[in-house]
Amino acid sequence: MATDERSDDRLAIDDLRNAWVVLSTDERVLGFGLLSPDQAEEFFLNLPPADAAELLAALPSQDRRRWMRLLAPDDAADLIQAAPEEMRHSLLELLDESTRREVSGLLAYKEDRAGGIMNPRYARLRPDMSVDEAITYLRRQARENLEMVYYAYVVAPDGELLGVVSFRELFSARPDVNVRDVMHTDVITVDEQMDQEAVTHIFAEHDLIAIPVVDAARKMKGIVTYDDIVDVVEQEATEDIQKIGGTQALGAPYLSLTMMEMIKKRVGWLAALFIGELLTATAMAYFEDEIARAVVLAMFVPLIISSGGNSGSQATTLVIRAMALGELRLRDWWRVIQRELITGLALGTVLGVMGFVRVVGWNMIKPVYGEHAIHLGLVVFFSLIGVITFGTLMGSLLPFVLRRCRIDPAAASAPFVATLVDVTGLVIYFSVAILFLSGRLL
Amino acid sequence: MATDERSDDRLAIDDLRNAWVVLSTDERVLGFGLLSPDQAEEFFLNLPPADAAELLAALPSQDRRRWMRLLAPDDAADLIQAAPEEMRHSLLELLDESTRREVSGLLAYKEDRAGGIMNPRYARLRPDMSVDEAITYLRRQARENLEMVYYAYVVAPDGELLGVVSFRELFSARPDVNVRDVMHTDVITVDEQMDQEAVTHIFAEHDLIAIPVVDAARKMKGIVTYDDIVDVVEQEATEDIQKIGGTQALGAPYLSLTMMEMIKKRVGWLAALFIGELLTATAMAYFEDEIARAVVLAMFVPLIISSGGNSGSQATTLVIRAMALGELRLRDWWRVIQRELITGLALGTVLGVMGFVRVVGWNMIKPVYGEHAIHLGLVVFFSLIGVITFGTLMGSLLPFVLRRCRIDPAAASAPFVATLVDVTGLVIYFSVAILFLSGRLL
Repeated sequence: MATDERSDDRLAIDDLRNAWVVLSTDERVLGFGLLSPDQAEEFFLNLPPADAAELLAALPSQDRRRWMRLLAPDDAADLIQAAPEEMRHSLLELLDESTRREVSGLLAYKEDRAGGIMNPRYARLRPDMSVDEAITYLRRQARENLEMVYYAYVVAPDGELLGVVSFRELFSARPDVNVRDVMHTDVITVDEQMDQEAVTHIFAEHDLIAIPVVDAARKMKGIVTYDDIVDVVEQEATEDIQKIGGTQALGAPYLSLTMMEMIKKRVGWLAALFIGELLTATAMAYFEDEIARAVVLAMFVPLIISSGGNSGSQATTLVIRAMALGELRLRDWWRVIQRELITGLALGTVLGVMGFVRVVGWNMIKPVYGEHAIHLGLVVFFSLIGVITFGTLMGSLLPFVLRRCRIDPAAASAPFVATLVDVTGLVIYFSVAILFLSGRLL
Repeated sequence: MATDERSDDRLAIDDLRNAWVVLSTDERVLGFGLLSPDQAEEFFLNLPPADAAELLAALPSQDRRRWMRLLAPDDAADLIQAAPEEMRHSLLELLDESTRREVSGLLAYKEDRAGGIMNPRYARLRPDMSVDEAITYLRRQARENLEMVYYAYVVAPDGELLGVVSFRELFSARPDVNVRDVMHTDVITVDEQMDQEAVTHIFAEHDLIAIPVVDAARKMKGIVTYDDIVDVVEQEATEDIQKIGGTQALGAPYLSLTMMEMIKKRVGWLAALFIGELLTATAMAYFEDEIARAVVLAMFVPLIISSGGNSGSQATTLVIRAMALGELRLRDWWRVIQRELITGLALGTVLGVMGFVRVVGWNMIKPVYGEHAIHLGLVVFFSLIGVITFGTLMGSLLPFVLRRCRIDPAAASAPFVATLVDVTGLVIYFSVAILFLSGRLL
């Protein structure tokens, strides 16, 4: 569909790509060996870093040098970071002197910082070149292995970033004016230590194709380009989604994890939540007398606590995502609480009415709840309002609390909030029941 | 932090941007009016389409033309699409003749198709130009309002896409050879009707900065660029996250929805889930006699059903995300079931043991469960294995079923799966209890 159907080349690559996740390492090496040199090159350059490292480890050692040298410095750094500890040094050794220095520089950054995702090669100009000289100079730079995109950066001899000029502006400028006269000095930059998620927000706000990375002295270190950012955006969203779902972030495609790894990533949270849920048994035991006297109360326990959990799950999910997109900041907590209080009361009232109708209406058709049906209906009505309002508030507050404690807000997963609300929900429900049914059913 | 701190210009823009969501329309117009012409231009170009449309509607009519004409055709189309129905025609009228034709063409596509996100302007070359002529020609094209990125497209007189050449290749080629000799004919393209989420996968697989959009006859229609794709990736992830959390996709930033809109987006699913949860009351009523005879059974109801819900929430989240990333396809369902069956049994066993220890261990300290503690412990043990395995299978299967029925798999939200598992979990739990406790507690 995306491919040129007249070309058999593409088919071979796509076949291998589709089969990739289910192939063993040996089969991968075999399949890779069947590609033509051009195909192999394209295929290798598009492999995720961890897969590329694994493939490289399985190839004969004399082939490795060639493949490593094909990579741009930032991709080489990613591959080395994804390789097993003991392989890293020897992979670095395969690079030529100057690239090795660039890659070592990149490896010094944390993976999730602007410096860790940038490319140290970019199109650079001097301010006192003429536009015509600049274009010729760029043509020469293009001949080297340079990830050249939309902008050329104007850099002083000491490395300070002076300005930026888009290729379009350079192309359309009069040939005899100086670069200094066409460049913009008001450049959007990011600091080399900026968190990658913050970098994605800068990209989204300014709609740029590349952003220069500078150090504290405004010395030019490299550029972050759009293709890096798409990967970061997908990866951050995946981590958030998985955390919201109540697992550790998998960190690898679903099918490529072994069963043991998969279970390990999931059992931790599940066991922690289970320990939290054990409190429900304690809470229930506390109200054992009430249940023994009015078994009918037990009937509505799952309904009440699940409704609280569902409303909490909605609230936490919305707030976590809004935070990740930069729509909500820490200082917005009070506005969110106000909104969620009203939302919770409204949602609770709607569901409360539905619950009341279920109890009282059903009792008219089949009088199972006897003379106390209306009181039981009121217990369900008020409990639902209380539990849903509480769930909504909990779900929206918790991400703020976590962020305040410098923990990833996405850890306030839907199951985590549901568990918190289950325990409190039981207390709310039975307290309301005692209030309304004392002297009647209780 | 991202901004050049030496520049006051940036501060004014950033202040307005930060305050934007909390400002009324009148305040927005006021703040926008305070910006310098350059600032206002940058600010306007970076507004989300809906906000830009709202601002435009509030500006004096003589200003609107100028702002509309500032937009690239794809951005103009987005703005018009985001404007209220009755404004659209008059906005279109503000554009010049040729742009209006382009924008009308774009508006004919559905928003979520490749044709709906593409830009109809791109750098185009003829195959029989020399490299030097091509560079000169590109310089002329650059002077027009052209979103020029990394590639130039070689197009036949009838519009058929013949090949692509990167600027880098063009720059570094010998000046006297023809474009035909340096271009690649094996071009990755997308069809104008391709779904935007599929387009993001093509980008991710091939690491390109722009992809040409063609029709069924391979005629060139426009290009989709990376900046469009980042927006799509964020937007699709946001929709998925919100659906997984059990609400309708908000479709707008959290704080920009009115309370009424917010409640509307959330009440639908919550009420539907509530109706599903009503079945738990029915299931509980079915086992009312057992509960009356052994009230202790009620104690563990929240624990058992929540554990099932949590494991189902994990499974559905992982599968939905893996599908969205293209890691899992419909045909993988059987492999997923096998993996999730084993995972569910393993997780169930771990939690089952914890539950058994809670019941039997607690009884040794405080003999609340009497002589039947071990049997009760076994009921909890086997129920947890059953419920968690069932939850895991349900959670992983449901997204496949929905996709098979051409419904968005993300509708298999965590709360939805939890509700399904609650009802079944009760039946599993009480059935196991009857099996183990008949003649003892029951």
